[in-house]
Amino acid sequence: MEYKISNKLASLKPSAIREIFKSLTDPTIISFAAGNPSPLSFPSEELAEISADIFKNQANVALQYGITEGYAPLRTAVEARMKEKFGIGRDFDTTIITTGGQQGIELTTKALCNEGDVVICENPSFIGALNSFRALGATPVGVPLNDDGIDVEILEKTLAETPNAKFIYVIPTFHNPMGITSTLENRKKVYELAKKYGVLILEDNPYGELRFAGENVPTYKSFDEDGIVIYCSSFSKILSAGMRIGYVCGPQDVISKMVVAKQVEDVHTNNFFQMLCHRYMTERDIDGHIEKIRGIYRAKAELMLSELDKHMPKCVKYTRPEGGLFLWCTLPNGTDSSEFIKKALAQKVAVVPGTAFNCDTEAPSDSFRLNYSMPSDEDIVRGISILSDIAREMFGE
Amino acid sequence: MEYKISNKLASLKPSAIREIFKSLTDPTIISFAAGNPSPLSFPSEELAEISADIFKNQANVALQYGITEGYAPLRTAVEARMKEKFGIGRDFDTTIITTGGQQGIELTTKALCNEGDVVICENPSFIGALNSFRALGATPVGVPLNDDGIDVEILEKTLAETPNAKFIYVIPTFHNPMGITSTLENRKKVYELAKKYGVLILEDNPYGELRFAGENVPTYKSFDEDGIVIYCSSFSKILSAGMRIGYVCGPQDVISKMVVAKQVEDVHTNNFFQMLCHRYMTERDIDGHIEKIRGIYRAKAELMLSELDKHMPKCVKYTRPEGGLFLWCTLPNGTDSSEFIKKALAQKVAVVPGTAFNCDTEAPSDSFRLNYSMPSDEDIVRGISILSDIAREMFGE
Repeated sequence: MEYKISNKLASLKPSAIREIFKSLTDPTIISFAAGNPSPLSFPSEELAEISADIFKNQANVALQYGITEGYAPLRTAVEARMKEKFGIGRDFDTTIITTGGQQGIELTTKALCNEGDVVICENPSFIGALNSFRALGATPVGVPLNDDGIDVEILEKTLAETPNAKFIYVIPTFHNPMGITSTLENRKKVYELAKKYGVLILEDNPYGELRFAGENVPTYKSFDEDGIVIYCSSFSKILSAGMRIGYVCGPQDVISKMVVAKQVEDVHTNNFFQMLCHRYMTERDIDGHIEKIRGIYRAKAELMLSELDKHMPKCVKYTRPEGGLFLWCTLPNGTDSSEFIKKALAQKVAVVPGTAFNCDTEAPSDSFRLNYSMPSDEDIVRGISILSDIAREMFGE
Repeated sequence: MEYKISNKLASLKPSAIREIFKSLTDPTIISFAAGNPSPLSFPSEELAEISADIFKNQANVALQYGITEGYAPLRTAVEARMKEKFGIGRDFDTTIITTGGQQGIELTTKALCNEGDVVICENPSFIGALNSFRALGATPVGVPLNDDGIDVEILEKTLAETPNAKFIYVIPTFHNPMGITSTLENRKKVYELAKKYGVLILEDNPYGELRFAGENVPTYKSFDEDGIVIYCSSFSKILSAGMRIGYVCGPQDVISKMVVAKQVEDVHTNNFFQMLCHRYMTERDIDGHIEKIRGIYRAKAELMLSELDKHMPKCVKYTRPEGGLFLWCTLPNGTDSSEFIKKALAQKVAVVPGTAFNCDTEAPSDSFRLNYSMPSDEDIVRGISILSDIAREMFGE
């Protein structure tokens, strides 16, 4: 039988990353392709202890339906932490719990976009967000991402030309895939442009707590006096990705519509793990735990960068992240990266092609993403050596 | 600031049931308004044992990202159970894990409907499904539900008049809110009409395992030789609602699009509880456990029905469910039920107004839904007595 698939999904392809993730069952492959946190970042023993206690003393709450907005004590704890760490939350804001940060992106789009509307994105951008927009019939339109953040001149031009743009999607801190952090000056300009053109900003900050170098830059949400920023994040990179607990903070009028949408999407987020998260946050040393993760990623990132510095031909450029999970390599002279990536895979090193992150799915890319949170130190050394050899063979020194 | 909300969400109101659920914090209220399973249906101790073992031996898998389709051993176990219990699953079908049964409904709609399309529904129908259609810009169009199932004459007329109808949504077994089970003859006729008009059927079966009286009726999916039925269900009513584990079985070509949509909605369903579910299914006595739940609900339903038989004036009609969580009361002569419901609430008995389940949100209703899984036996006796007194006062004997 021929099935009539909705327009918005008919042409949408599965995320290249999730597909690569599925194919990475070959244990001999060195994978720089993951977006996973290190298993060392899961405080399993502590979670096991709290879990046993929940089953003993709160099972009937944890296993029963909860409310769509999320487990109230967790919402309170998240609000307190966002305030303390990132200066987030005003009287007009409210916070709800989502099924991972991903759902926050999806619900924002559902609340704000009709089919045919536009979301303005940094280009490149997080594939999961881009496809989330597409799956709801909205079109991501890319604006180049420079070293200091999204290109504000092109952004203003795009805003002026795109009356059906509903929001600007940014990952300003430890950007996925580029690993860069936009400057405060850039953020302020983007904020003013959003105000001027009457569009909202969706600030995605899943890696914000993972700074291992440099100075903190204020979040967009921290200077949002006008109620135009929706902020989403999650516990995926600091406690567990598999538990799927995220959150969104934004103006009540928008969030209340997202609650209605969430109600009919998954009713509420897994109750048990909401309670587990809350108790971990309030009873254990979450700051100490995050400090440990930062240490791990600092060492991994420094190793990958020093190996690149030592071995990679100078014509290949790469970013120097101050946090997060990724860095971004760019081949010389705009060379399409697909041949390089194929050669790397033939030598059992997997990276994610830059094309996966393009707003325009037909556009080529001269770049690829490297992840340093998952590979072992040995794999980082060997993998970068292999990539460097291929680059030298293709481009010389 | 004035926010521009998407057309599909701008007019959508929160589910009356979820709102009632939130307001039911007054412990002196007798609530027949819930849709919750009894806490007695949670095998907490066994889940605690398995949970401890997962933390001990499989934590790094359980807490890490998983694949969108779901934890493979759980998918296999679910497929085996659907086959054994309900004759479900052919070569062209595949099964994925969803975040509760609710997400299966939502993903089906996303895969099949453009904004402006129609979903044909039994009227009344499950509010969570109706709002899920609306939240994606599809319109639920109701066809009356008779004692033997959806009215097939009106269904055919509606199909003939509605070229943009994409699927028929049915809860054929222990219907929510009506508690009725459609006959095999009715199901076969609906199936033939779907085939004739080239639309799919979404069979929602969250209560299917909860039969406590009468004979099993084959699911739509069990006679789906043509690949036109999408089947969804969950573990919410047999293991835990709070864990949010559901599943969908349907033709691969449709399910593969739902996977793409799920990927960008919540990436995957909570991994830990997928593993917990799988181990419970394969290592413990799930059939024995369900038999226990059936016994509890049989006793509750029989008590509520016998109290209604004894005390309710004969002019008030009600359904006699053979399973599930609900029965449906209808006032005489088409009397709008809102005054009755207000009087009941004033006397601290909460029920859900029939209007909440109408496809046409402006239409009145002469009915209301009663839940018997949550209230205590004492509350059932007292609550039905109060409702009967109000009915007698309003309508005489």
